[in-house]
Amino acid sequence: MDFKFLQELIAPAQTKIVMLIMDGLGGLPLEPGGKTELETARTPHLDALAAQSALGLTIPVGLGITAGSGPGHLAIFGYDPIEYEIGRGALEALGVDFELGPDDLAARGNFCTLDTNGLLNDRRAGRLPTEMSRELAALLRTIRVEEAEIFVEPVKEHRFAFVLRAPGLDAALTETDPLKVGVSPLKVNAIQPGAEKAACLVNRFIEQAGKLLAGKHPANMILLRGFAKLPIMPQYADIFGLRAAAIAINGMYRGVARLVGMQVLDVGGDTLADEFTTLEEHWNDFDFFYLHVKKTDTCGENGDFAGKVRVIEEVHGLLPRLLALRPDVVIVSGDHSSPAVLKSHSWHPVPTLLYSKVVRPDRIAEFGERACARGSLGILPAKHIMPIALANAGRLAKYGA
Amino acid sequence: MDFKFLQELIAPAQTKIVMLIMDGLGGLPLEPGGKTELETARTPHLDALAAQSALGLTIPVGLGITAGSGPGHLAIFGYDPIEYEIGRGALEALGVDFELGPDDLAARGNFCTLDTNGLLNDRRAGRLPTEMSRELAALLRTIRVEEAEIFVEPVKEHRFAFVLRAPGLDAALTETDPLKVGVSPLKVNAIQPGAEKAACLVNRFIEQAGKLLAGKHPANMILLRGFAKLPIMPQYADIFGLRAAAIAINGMYRGVARLVGMQVLDVGGDTLADEFTTLEEHWNDFDFFYLHVKKTDTCGENGDFAGKVRVIEEVHGLLPRLLALRPDVVIVSGDHSSPAVLKSHSWHPVPTLLYSKVVRPDRIAEFGERACARGSLGILPAKHIMPIALANAGRLAKYGA
Repeated sequence: MDFKFLQELIAPAQTKIVMLIMDGLGGLPLEPGGKTELETARTPHLDALAAQSALGLTIPVGLGITAGSGPGHLAIFGYDPIEYEIGRGALEALGVDFELGPDDLAARGNFCTLDTNGLLNDRRAGRLPTEMSRELAALLRTIRVEEAEIFVEPVKEHRFAFVLRAPGLDAALTETDPLKVGVSPLKVNAIQPGAEKAACLVNRFIEQAGKLLAGKHPANMILLRGFAKLPIMPQYADIFGLRAAAIAINGMYRGVARLVGMQVLDVGGDTLADEFTTLEEHWNDFDFFYLHVKKTDTCGENGDFAGKVRVIEEVHGLLPRLLALRPDVVIVSGDHSSPAVLKSHSWHPVPTLLYSKVVRPDRIAEFGERACARGSLGILPAKHIMPIALANAGRLAKYGA
Repeated sequence: MDFKFLQELIAPAQTKIVMLIMDGLGGLPLEPGGKTELETARTPHLDALAAQSALGLTIPVGLGITAGSGPGHLAIFGYDPIEYEIGRGALEALGVDFELGPDDLAARGNFCTLDTNGLLNDRRAGRLPTEMSRELAALLRTIRVEEAEIFVEPVKEHRFAFVLRAPGLDAALTETDPLKVGVSPLKVNAIQPGAEKAACLVNRFIEQAGKLLAGKHPANMILLRGFAKLPIMPQYADIFGLRAAAIAINGMYRGVARLVGMQVLDVGGDTLADEFTTLEEHWNDFDFFYLHVKKTDTCGENGDFAGKVRVIEEVHGLLPRLLALRPDVVIVSGDHSSPAVLKSHSWHPVPTLLYSKVVRPDRIAEFGERACARGSLGILPAKHIMPIALANAGRLAKYGA
């Protein structure tokens, strides 16, 4: 079922859909026979909503595949995350809230150390402190390359996001990081015809960067990799007929939402409550709201089982404010699993709840991994959630007479 | 999700996967309201393992499709059994443990009876006793056809496997069996350009076979059908990064395992216990072990419900030896169903268990068809089991940042 098929069935409606994404929601028990983070959390509001909902487990990319946040979000947003791939350079730029445009070629940058013979002896410049990175990034921004605009944004430690803006750039480029020490950084080469211009401009930038950084040991050179442009994504307004808004604090999620055509709202603060306030303030202006909770994933990646439980309970505590808005459809899910016991993203299917007045409720009054495994949505690709949500919102006409 | 996608995510690990395949495992109740063979078997060790596992039902080929052993095994090995088809001639040769190579053209052979006018009057030569078949096969082996090597291996009764070895043979050939009596056997014709050489060599072999067998009534001629070469299969080492070993007693299973790049181990005996001993002896040498149990299927095909129950109980009794090796991932499944009540292979989904320390357990302390239908793996194509197993073995990196 492709977007063209769906698009022809889209019908106007005065209904509102809220997609509440707890990043890395899915978990694992700490010990044999135990409960997961979500099963451990005391969430009577969520459980009550579950009782009126259809439950299931979503698979972001494929069975056994651990999804990064980019593909995980594209999937729950309704896109095939293998067909629509966001390159690493583009994700890095989105992550620092850089507004990537269609003329932008992005890459991941590292400060690195060359020895006196110009050979690499530290690919990360001793994990340069972020403060120093910031100063050096400012220095790199003074570089001028004809025909192109240049952006250098510090990320963390030795890392920065690099963006070259000019018409006609192609991302089919080799990387400069040789992935080992004792050799020179590589030149950028065009992999496909048409990428020569980009290769030439990037090489000129690198050459000047080398001169500017020459005396700045240990950060006396840069490495660039993961060259990428933004994929051109079908837009929410076009394919789903939705005026969509994104409420997220961290750059990458704001970036991915912008990519699919959501309007990214300013959140006047950095707490969960601030995000719910933003939802309330803009309730009348949009048909669809994506609300992102970051800390579930942060705790998962840190191995903080109890912390993840607390974040879920905190989200649950704010749920009545969401429900008071009387949304027509509510989706509660995650973009992937991040079990605290694994301290990383994982391949495990993601607990998912879909509430509406016209859903066929499973009458399972519990929101948890094992409860969702018994749900009537079954185990399904995450990208299929959006059509179900649209149907529940009265936004899909009948197919055939 | 194709092999290329998976291949790029493969990560090295020091983990071991065991795939225990009970042939034709899935069953049916003997009477309304009854239990299946697997549900009837007393299997506390399996049930305990199930409690720590994810359960599901696998579909070897497609919904409603009854799988042969070839496609059933390819599917649980991770291949699409429709894309990768093993022809009948090739399966016959694999079945007698013949090591088919890339230059080999294989066919199923029958001894048959011609009347004095050269017309077929028994397509199976009165189901010739195997002993006589063996003698005649030896006779056929004396035939010389220039440029080609010839192999004739007796199978059972009137059947034999025929292999022609020469460079440049194409299997696009018509068959010689007219599928009715009262007519002459057919000549082999090339269906596609490029198969003329093969047609010519096979016809010369048949001509000489006719002369040699002329006085051997009732087996005075042969029929050949199911011409096939081995498909070229992506190899386990390349697509999954696994050093894989196969432990199986019967030729066909050894052949299919060899085809996908598994090393086929010698089993010093023909009992189930011998197979488990082989597993123990080679434990340190491989990352992946396929262990095949034949008798579940044999009992199923013979309509021997109680026998199938006993074989399952016997396998269950050996499970502690497998678990004592501390495998990281254990899959227990079948290649298809063979309900005793049907006395044949069937289309019913196959009970499947996947254990690892990092699986999300369903907490269903029972391994049976109905228990698996409630499991969190859901009802899934058998070919998806391998990526899940690789993920659980820590052998798949994250997709996207």
